[in-house]
Amino acid sequence: MNLILFTVAETEAPLPAADPRARHIVQHLRRGRGEAFDVGLIDGPRGKAWIVESDADSLLLEFRWEDASDPPIPLILGAGFPRPQSARRILRDTTALGVGALHFFDADKGVPTYRESRLWSTGEYRRHLVEGAEQAFSTRLPALELHSGLDAFLGSLPPDSDRLALDLYEAGAALASADLTRPGLVLAVGPERGWSARERQLLRAADFRLVHLGRRVLRSDTACLCAVGLALHRMALL
Amino acid sequence: MNLILFTVAETEAPLPAADPRARHIVQHLRRGRGEAFDVGLIDGPRGKAWIVESDADSLLLEFRWEDASDPPIPLILGAGFPRPQSARRILRDTTALGVGALHFFDADKGVPTYRESRLWSTGEYRRHLVEGAEQAFSTRLPALELHSGLDAFLGSLPPDSDRLALDLYEAGAALASADLTRPGLVLAVGPERGWSARERQLLRAADFRLVHLGRRVLRSDTACLCAVGLALHRMALL
Repeated sequence: MNLILFTVAETEAPLPAADPRARHIVQHLRRGRGEAFDVGLIDGPRGKAWIVESDADSLLLEFRWEDASDPPIPLILGAGFPRPQSARRILRDTTALGVGALHFFDADKGVPTYRESRLWSTGEYRRHLVEGAEQAFSTRLPALELHSGLDAFLGSLPPDSDRLALDLYEAGAALASADLTRPGLVLAVGPERGWSARERQLLRAADFRLVHLGRRVLRSDTACLCAVGLALHRMALL
Repeated sequence: MNLILFTVAETEAPLPAADPRARHIVQHLRRGRGEAFDVGLIDGPRGKAWIVESDADSLLLEFRWEDASDPPIPLILGAGFPRPQSARRILRDTTALGVGALHFFDADKGVPTYRESRLWSTGEYRRHLVEGAEQAFSTRLPALELHSGLDAFLGSLPPDSDRLALDLYEAGAALASADLTRPGLVLAVGPERGWSARERQLLRAADFRLVHLGRRVLRSDTACLCAVGLALHRMALL
């Protein structure tokens, strides 16, 4: 936690002592009454906060907001539902890198049980987004959308965007050398077993170029992280 | 395990039934007698193997080697010892990406207990290298070296290499835009709390350019993975 994030509602009530943020402030940062630490408002400004009052049950904090938030980066990453352990890393680490939106969809060759994980059903996913933003000293969480299939994901995309899909088998060029000309970028990554023929047709019909990350077979989390890094570089943001 | 790796010695004796590779061949790949699967010799060729005989204790395999191994990539990643959980990811995932050598050193601001992990003392690290290579369908393991400090790491480097060190605070340019002119590349990554002033002097004296991955604060595993991806791109390998 390099930056401790709050929602607006959370800044308007005492912070329960059992909240991991309260424990972090008292036990890890060792802040006493009046000693400031770095905070952020989710999708809002960064600033400072300090303890005004504390008792066994809660901390009462005061906040002072300073800079404006970074603008969201127009990079959408869409991926077939990965196994939950990989999904947790993708959520946290691509948020840290600054991805603007994360979409997950049921892919034809995906494993149906992956989307039934408690990661998605309990809202646990949000904790990983917050962790990634706190790590990166950012207040910005990516928009998150879950879709029943690639078709629905494609239907949700903004029209004026470059579109690249990772493909180990039918790629025509390297992602790292793709020319980008539009205001936004959509990156699509298949499930572990790759795209179906039907999905490749859908992608091509929706103006996606098939690109690769070299010939090596990567885990989906490694591929997503490297692809986002290289995409940010192509967007002149890294 | 996309490719199952063996040492030469392991190809000359029956494979114990309790070995994870034996279980993978029988239970996951469901191979019976005479049915081929993909194998590789560590730092050697890829090929096919099949079961010649099996009993409750072991599998007797026959091997046929096919293609030559990929040449090692002249990219050395050196990092201050990361926390063991991050180190496991760095070992596995940068091996999958194809890094040629991995060096770890005690950094001035590092946490001394990290290098005492059983990851290093028991040889566990090798399992993660093998897992990364198997994932990437490669037989090549990076050379691994552990050093007592940055000085020793710098003393071990080949002379004719470009040298870049990640630095969030004093970087002059982006890693992704660094011009490379020499046959090899050395990438140095500090510990979580960054370089000391003494280490920055050592790096500059050893011809390192300080570069950044953007202004966001990344976990050491995320930084290593992205840095290796961008470095391979600058080397025209990705």
